[in-house]
Amino acid sequence: MAEMTGVLSRYRRAGDYLAATMIHLKDNFLLQAPLRPEHLKPRPLGHWGTCPGLTMVYAGLNRLVAETGQRTLLITGPGHGAPAIHANLWLEGTHAEYDPLLSRDGRGLAELVKRFSWPGGFPSHLSPEVPGVIHEGGELGYALSTAFGAAFDDPGLMVACVIGDGEAETGPTAAAWHSPKFTGRGDGRVLPVLHLNGYKIASPTIYEAMSDDELVAYFTGCGWSPILVDVRDAEEPDTLLAEALTQAHGRDTGPPPMIVLQNTKGSGLPSTSPDGIPLEGTFHSHQVPFPGAKDDPAELTALEAWLRSYRPEELFDDNGVPAADILAVPPAPGLRLGRVPQANGGLLRRDLPLPDVGKYAVAVGEPGGTDASAPEVLAEWLAEIVRLAPDTFRVVCPDELQSNKLGALLGATRRQFDRDVPGYTEHLGERGRVHEVLSEHLCQGWLQGYLLTGRHGLFPCYEAFVSIVDSMVNQYAKFLKMADEVSWRVPVASLNYLLTSDGWRQEHNGYSHQGPGFINQMLTKKATTSRIYLPPDANTLLETMHRCLGSTGLINVVVAGKQSGPQWLSPGEARAHCRAGAAVWPWASTTDGPADVVLAAAGTTPTVEILAAARLLREVAPELRVRVVNVVDLLALCPPDRHPHGLSDEAFIGCFGEETPVVFAFHGYPSAVHEVLHGRNRANRFHVHGYLEEGTTTTPFDLLAGNRMTRHDLAADAVRRAPGWASAGGDLARDLIQRRDALLTRSYQDGQDPPEITEWRWRT
Amino acid sequence: MAEMTGVLSRYRRAGDYLAATMIHLKDNFLLQAPLRPEHLKPRPLGHWGTCPGLTMVYAGLNRLVAETGQRTLLITGPGHGAPAIHANLWLEGTHAEYDPLLSRDGRGLAELVKRFSWPGGFPSHLSPEVPGVIHEGGELGYALSTAFGAAFDDPGLMVACVIGDGEAETGPTAAAWHSPKFTGRGDGRVLPVLHLNGYKIASPTIYEAMSDDELVAYFTGCGWSPILVDVRDAEEPDTLLAEALTQAHGRDTGPPPMIVLQNTKGSGLPSTSPDGIPLEGTFHSHQVPFPGAKDDPAELTALEAWLRSYRPEELFDDNGVPAADILAVPPAPGLRLGRVPQANGGLLRRDLPLPDVGKYAVAVGEPGGTDASAPEVLAEWLAEIVRLAPDTFRVVCPDELQSNKLGALLGATRRQFDRDVPGYTEHLGERGRVHEVLSEHLCQGWLQGYLLTGRHGLFPCYEAFVSIVDSMVNQYAKFLKMADEVSWRVPVASLNYLLTSDGWRQEHNGYSHQGPGFINQMLTKKATTSRIYLPPDANTLLETMHRCLGSTGLINVVVAGKQSGPQWLSPGEARAHCRAGAAVWPWASTTDGPADVVLAAAGTTPTVEILAAARLLREVAPELRVRVVNVVDLLALCPPDRHPHGLSDEAFIGCFGEETPVVFAFHGYPSAVHEVLHGRNRANRFHVHGYLEEGTTTTPFDLLAGNRMTRHDLAADAVRRAPGWASAGGDLARDLIQRRDALLTRSYQDGQDPPEITEWRWRT
Repeated sequence: MAEMTGVLSRYRRAGDYLAATMIHLKDNFLLQAPLRPEHLKPRPLGHWGTCPGLTMVYAGLNRLVAETGQRTLLITGPGHGAPAIHANLWLEGTHAEYDPLLSRDGRGLAELVKRFSWPGGFPSHLSPEVPGVIHEGGELGYALSTAFGAAFDDPGLMVACVIGDGEAETGPTAAAWHSPKFTGRGDGRVLPVLHLNGYKIASPTIYEAMSDDELVAYFTGCGWSPILVDVRDAEEPDTLLAEALTQAHGRDTGPPPMIVLQNTKGSGLPSTSPDGIPLEGTFHSHQVPFPGAKDDPAELTALEAWLRSYRPEELFDDNGVPAADILAVPPAPGLRLGRVPQANGGLLRRDLPLPDVGKYAVAVGEPGGTDASAPEVLAEWLAEIVRLAPDTFRVVCPDELQSNKLGALLGATRRQFDRDVPGYTEHLGERGRVHEVLSEHLCQGWLQGYLLTGRHGLFPCYEAFVSIVDSMVNQYAKFLKMADEVSWRVPVASLNYLLTSDGWRQEHNGYSHQGPGFINQMLTKKATTSRIYLPPDANTLLETMHRCLGSTGLINVVVAGKQSGPQWLSPGEARAHCRAGAAVWPWASTTDGPADVVLAAAGTTPTVEILAAARLLREVAPELRVRVVNVVDLLALCPPDRHPHGLSDEAFIGCFGEETPVVFAFHGYPSAVHEVLHGRNRANRFHVHGYLEEGTTTTPFDLLAGNRMTRHDLAADAVRRAPGWASAGGDLARDLIQRRDALLTRSYQDGQDPPEITEWRWRT
Repeated sequence: MAEMTGVLSRYRRAGDYLAATMIHLKDNFLLQAPLRPEHLKPRPLGHWGTCPGLTMVYAGLNRLVAETGQRTLLITGPGHGAPAIHANLWLEGTHAEYDPLLSRDGRGLAELVKRFSWPGGFPSHLSPEVPGVIHEGGELGYALSTAFGAAFDDPGLMVACVIGDGEAETGPTAAAWHSPKFTGRGDGRVLPVLHLNGYKIASPTIYEAMSDDELVAYFTGCGWSPILVDVRDAEEPDTLLAEALTQAHGRDTGPPPMIVLQNTKGSGLPSTSPDGIPLEGTFHSHQVPFPGAKDDPAELTALEAWLRSYRPEELFDDNGVPAADILAVPPAPGLRLGRVPQANGGLLRRDLPLPDVGKYAVAVGEPGGTDASAPEVLAEWLAEIVRLAPDTFRVVCPDELQSNKLGALLGATRRQFDRDVPGYTEHLGERGRVHEVLSEHLCQGWLQGYLLTGRHGLFPCYEAFVSIVDSMVNQYAKFLKMADEVSWRVPVASLNYLLTSDGWRQEHNGYSHQGPGFINQMLTKKATTSRIYLPPDANTLLETMHRCLGSTGLINVVVAGKQSGPQWLSPGEARAHCRAGAAVWPWASTTDGPADVVLAAAGTTPTVEILAAARLLREVAPELRVRVVNVVDLLALCPPDRHPHGLSDEAFIGCFGEETPVVFAFHGYPSAVHEVLHGRNRANRFHVHGYLEEGTTTTPFDLLAGNRMTRHDLAADAVRRAPGWASAGGDLARDLIQRRDALLTRSYQDGQDPPEITEWRWRT
């Protein structure tokens, strides 16, 4: 052990030295000359505090992997400790393999150190540019759930996951500690290392305020077998950690092991700065230890003394090549943490076997002549995927699979929940393709880890509550965007959302369950990343989901109602409609020439209402020339120079004319349509009806009325907007609204919508 | 005890009976006739599963409060168990006090039962319409943090908080268990009751999968003293709970008590439905127990048998008046759970003492002649508020107070953290106005509870990470909107965000820390609720924050850069500018008549760049007539019929002309400006530059260039857009972009922006 400790200690000195220089130096990297201000970066940026701990873990894992051959993926929660990870990637030779400029010699060392936090260089955090990385760690909270996602269905893999004690304060991390209950025998193992160095940016952490007994109790309660490793005053910290890692790795019965690494923040620094500010072991070591060194001679002296305390001349030869014993620490190339293929999951991804949707499609004779629940139809197709891909496809859902009408999936698989729960259960088992947990954060984190390591998945969710993961999606979209710019990254399968149980038909629930804002959220993303679909019926949902599950590198948001309702398009029509993105529905229109008004819709409920409005208009204004347009791909409305799905001007005019007023019934907030139309000519002629944040527990028709989107509101708007209909239109509109109100009165009396609404079906 | 148990058991029977009838009946409420289909609601909606447990807790608290006189606020995490809460509010007489139609007799009973989940009636979840409620509980996860917020600074108050075991799976709840560490002696106490009935909608819960030992370990680890109460097969469940409540209430040293109530889901139901589906004690009891009773005689029979099993004739007289012993259970009126004034916090709210900002303002001689960090200036003013309002104002922050340059607050108060943490700390104490925890969810939940009980607060946050609470803000905005429509609710202080450490100047961090999407998020909210301010300097920030902290009923989002930079407006000018919302800056304009182009900006960095662009244009195109406009109130751009802050047409034209092209430098995504301008005439003439999701760790100027928002980009756009400048404009634009690129090349070489950028200051 002592020998190992000696080598690992030297290895760590090299890693820490490199990390320290990355933050501070732009020259004289080996300190072969006295340190002078011109050797320092003009803007020293980065985070030192967590670096020594990260290298300690990296070194320990190197030893374990070299000794055991354990395939290991490392997820670094404290992504701002990037200098440490870069140092290790350089020492193990991975950096040089991805970029010859980062060779393991003085030239490569110079390039590495200078490139860090330099314009055009490496960012200050981990990011997709960095080999071995599937987790950025800038926004905190998602390392542990990502680690579990990476481990699912990869039984030989160990995912080591470092979690800072700052990150551990977040809710998503706190929830993720329960993940072992959702892990089964066919899955890999996750080895969490809580890096308890006591401080976040400016304060002690929650975990620092817990006694050892409380730490053990907490993690035991979560179902772990915690191993406390206190290296703060240890003579041989590497030995302590090595023992813990070996113990953890060897244990394969009982509660899974996790490690609490009790460490000194920013260890290696002097105890105080020249100004007397405490450094090592305090939050003052969090970022740049000597930010003023370029201008303050005392700081410069202290910085030089600190850097020289690592004795770089003992670690690197005069040419900057690390000593042989240090180079011998990392495992064989195929096992290096930076080279594990799971960290570039696109390499491992195989196309998901997607059954032809034809077999699952609904037979639709005349439009509106058949009823179905689109998710119910989809679920049978998904069940077949599960049968065809028993270990590369997972569905995560916040306890809503059946509520979202996807229960048929459970005919082909189970909910994975690896505990002998007492009492009555259904469809629960130690292996299963479905994960149900009442935490959107966990669903998202697990799925991210699963996708980024080369697999496929689907996240069905109540539409209103998917906003819980807004910020995770922000970060994931950034990861995809950056990954797309890295030549060696191979695209991973898209992240697919099926948002259903939407606010228009949430009968058991009320205002809190109404929220279509995720669409707006997605509209802030790069056009290379985001897709938004609103299939109006089952066959369009099948076509849409087929497209999404076959795609890579995207975030696909599919919004579709779950309640049984009229079906509009035959399988062939659905395919054509989805290819077009937006198209005229001639059978619903009263003209194939110029129209007085366009009635357009996007979304399940809006499509019903716009068609009902078209029917109303045939009755009350038969001479009005109406064109009905349906939009399944919201981004088709964007000008083509803003989004690759944007309809050509010609196709757009084919749908909406050039000056024709458009009454648009939209599933979400009207602002989303305003936004996608921006840049189209005469966008002000689009009169968008949508969700106006008016709602409660009430009937579907009353909810539409509160948001001015009943068929009557839409028809009334149409006659008001149609050119030349000014006077007649006003009277007609008033009549329509009166008809609406009479129906509402009956709804209030009867506690349900009248049959005129509930039993209404399209008839040509 | 036995006597008490007998009465509480009868009380619960009454409560459960009422809840069951609310879900099912619209007539024959006392079952005085045989149950027939026409007595049933046509759309039976609601959630039964959690109701019996809620009434058990309510009954137990009634007993405790009656016995001890303990002031108690109840927060009900499972808000979908609204029928139970309504039943209790009716039994205790609170409903009748708020609405005479809900009298404690047969007429009121009929009204109550029928009104539940009926169009125009009570929603299926708790909501602001319900007395005693400050937490809706539709979206799960926030009950516990809200409870702590309500308890802060109210030492005599006990906040009882029921948390469903479904909700307990969420990350925000998991984080909130650590809240006692942030609670001090001047605060009230929180008594959590984990309602462990084993199931969420369709599966067993995580907590059901934990052994009793694990439950005790987990909560002990979090710092609680857990009391397990298993009433599943208890003869006298009320006695067991009463003992636990008394024990918990009496304990005032050591770790605070919490209760794990191990209960049977949907208890009281028959064990199976007529179809043989298991009901009591399974997830099948989650929603409506007998949804088909109206059409299925077997279900109708089963429903009637179930309802009659409560023996309503023993609980209510023929007129529907509850029996005297039942009426005697709730405490005296002043102590009833439904009447505690904290649940209508506006009643308790007192205006925050707001010091005149003049004393704290920056002296600004000529525009741009002084440098300051706006948050640093603000912090001195906030510190004075803390001194003046030592127990009604709190600041929550995710460990970023000093990073956000608000450290001066710590001259007047401390970070509250109630534990003897070892090691070095600064500004930490058992009492303090500042809460720093690395969980935006906790910050938000605590603050919501604090505001809703009548106090004031501020949430400074890194702008990019405030999206973590998007969904909480969605729900809070809904609460405010509904509360505003309830006559007896008194407005509470506004929820104030200060978003700083914005993406344009995040030197130590990179792409993950860039995200201005919260502005877009707020734009989906009702105009009655949302406000968005982008003060460009310290004095406008002071004025803005003075306005926000003096307001009620709103969500105010204030976005302001933290880095030291040029100051533009004197205190008087700042006041006028903030009152106007958007205004011409004449000193920066080259014309006071018609302009060729308007240069507009909103936000700290965009303001600097637009002014630098104006300077550039004076140099390269001195004959170009430029008007410079600054927007501090983003919603001033809305048409006045869409938002109360919308500028009148006259004022809008005064700023932007009628046809003049506008080059707009915006802090956030350009789409936000497109959205607010929707409905203004000729909105397409606004050419908005903003954040385009291009970024990494780099220099500020490089970041601007990546997003095409440097002064050069803006000036180039101006000369391109100006009418009549077609040919000259193109050449000028090319020159400007070349000048930009030369500066960028130097940035890349030097690792920092050249002095032309960093030392640039406005000179008239």
